[in-house]
Amino acid sequence: MIKMILDLDTGIDDAMALAYAIGTKEAELIGVTGTFGNVYTEVGVQNVLNILNMCNENGIPVFAGATHAMDQNHFDRLEVSARIHGDNGVGQVAIETSPREIETKSAVDFLIESVKKYGKELVIVPTGPLTNLALALKKAPEIKDIMGRVVLMGGALTIPGNVNQYTEANISQDPEAAKYVFESGIDVTMVGLDVTTRSLLTKADTQIWRETGSVAGKTYADMVDYYISQHFEVEGCYLHDPSAAINAVHPEYFTMLPMHMTVITEGEAEGRTIGDPKKLRDPNPNVKVCIGVDSPYLVKELNETLLSLFQTVKVKEFSGN
Amino acid sequence: MIKMILDLDTGIDDAMALAYAIGTKEAELIGVTGTFGNVYTEVGVQNVLNILNMCNENGIPVFAGATHAMDQNHFDRLEVSARIHGDNGVGQVAIETSPREIETKSAVDFLIESVKKYGKELVIVPTGPLTNLALALKKAPEIKDIMGRVVLMGGALTIPGNVNQYTEANISQDPEAAKYVFESGIDVTMVGLDVTTRSLLTKADTQIWRETGSVAGKTYADMVDYYISQHFEVEGCYLHDPSAAINAVHPEYFTMLPMHMTVITEGEAEGRTIGDPKKLRDPNPNVKVCIGVDSPYLVKELNETLLSLFQTVKVKEFSGN
Repeated sequence: MIKMILDLDTGIDDAMALAYAIGTKEAELIGVTGTFGNVYTEVGVQNVLNILNMCNENGIPVFAGATHAMDQNHFDRLEVSARIHGDNGVGQVAIETSPREIETKSAVDFLIESVKKYGKELVIVPTGPLTNLALALKKAPEIKDIMGRVVLMGGALTIPGNVNQYTEANISQDPEAAKYVFESGIDVTMVGLDVTTRSLLTKADTQIWRETGSVAGKTYADMVDYYISQHFEVEGCYLHDPSAAINAVHPEYFTMLPMHMTVITEGEAEGRTIGDPKKLRDPNPNVKVCIGVDSPYLVKELNETLLSLFQTVKVKEFSGN
Repeated sequence: MIKMILDLDTGIDDAMALAYAIGTKEAELIGVTGTFGNVYTEVGVQNVLNILNMCNENGIPVFAGATHAMDQNHFDRLEVSARIHGDNGVGQVAIETSPREIETKSAVDFLIESVKKYGKELVIVPTGPLTNLALALKKAPEIKDIMGRVVLMGGALTIPGNVNQYTEANISQDPEAAKYVFESGIDVTMVGLDVTTRSLLTKADTQIWRETGSVAGKTYADMVDYYISQHFEVEGCYLHDPSAAINAVHPEYFTMLPMHMTVITEGEAEGRTIGDPKKLRDPNPNVKVCIGVDSPYLVKELNETLLSLFQTVKVKEFSGN
């Protein structure tokens, strides 16, 4: 069974990716690292602790990571992030505070140690800016040769971005880190807007979670309903971060284009993810860009995994575990 | 056997597409329409007449089309076009003037009549701005429902453009026409920089044409050597327009991504070809974007077809036909 680390800026869709990673029987979530983006890092890791506690998963360690982009010394949360994810990052839903604290080890050191321990068994799934991963690769470049897949949510290749027509939010928040990761030669799968906006979850789906009667099911339904309410152009919400977590386990749901990818780091197109024209005839492209997805399968997999998780948690809630 | 119309702004790589279309046994070139772009329209159609005459193909009619973009009233040839293709469009190589004149019928009317005559048997291959085709679709919208494939050279989806980071030359010269064609719902194959810059032709290839001893072989070798000399970053030349002509006959050499495509028509990204995010979940995408090509097969097909053509022409040159 694969080992998984989620690198989250939690965030409602991060929370969905987290529930999937806990719930799937086909991966073991060995830890969660936190970063900035949808929320400030300290808010995101607290959200993760609280969700894990709610789901009776207090054995999974949580590590705090970068609080700003590599070439910056601060980060200001965007107003649009507060709107889409709510001030508290989880759709203004109250989740009981976890009795646990985050680990003292840094996210970067946990990433490095985990790669050294598990090698190609480990899949790292970043769903925010790629700062933690870039810092780990810079601190311990020797891990490049032994590490397994990185499956990231970020970027847009065949459609416009969501921050502006050129760039997607995660990449835009640390273009230098993204460029470093894409050009590092490691095995990267880019799960970008090209596919994440093809799949929708609706209130009919969340209602089924709510009907499990579990606190977790109700909380997730309320969170995602809030998230859906912030999607004005569609009847539902896009599946950004969960698509990356699902790709880590089920890459066969996706059509992927092998490429040498780069990131524009200056000018009006800063944060644009685009093929490197200088490497177009080079062999062994290291980035697989998702350009197609079997959305019905993906939505079914997400729904079934989360439903099963919430049903299981319900039993534990009753038994007082 | 498929019928083919080439819509050219000849242009050295247009001339290569023309030689391929004449030479292939798998398509019948029923006419050539001319447009602006690499050269002024009147220069381009004269180049086509001269090349057809050189190749003993004076039965193929040539029609003049648009001389400027749909929303403009003039066209100024870019300095870079004169550099890459030579002042005369054919690499400063002298080609004997054809005794023939262009047809009196317009390019647009020939396109419309040909679609009505041949329907889905006909493949239209535009290798310049899409003005003639857009004007034909506007003048006779009823042809949309009966026409076959359009295989165009133009655009860039997964790599930057060649005019600037956003746009490719053909699309940039009439973004409105390109948007109209892409969004018309007709069956479009986009052969863009994503694939055309993956395939190279070298002076070793052109030397083989020269050694046929035919005027056509020598002329083509001289033209393409000039074109190669204007490619500073690679040892050879890219195969832009010939890739489109070859795709018309051998689509199986290419990997294609079905999409709903649009074109940005204003701002700094004017001329960018990009997926329409509003139609991402719509069925039946009408544009197939080439994202991969089996370059060795493509180069072999081009070389063999042109070599065979120049050898055949040589026999006719000797026999005085």
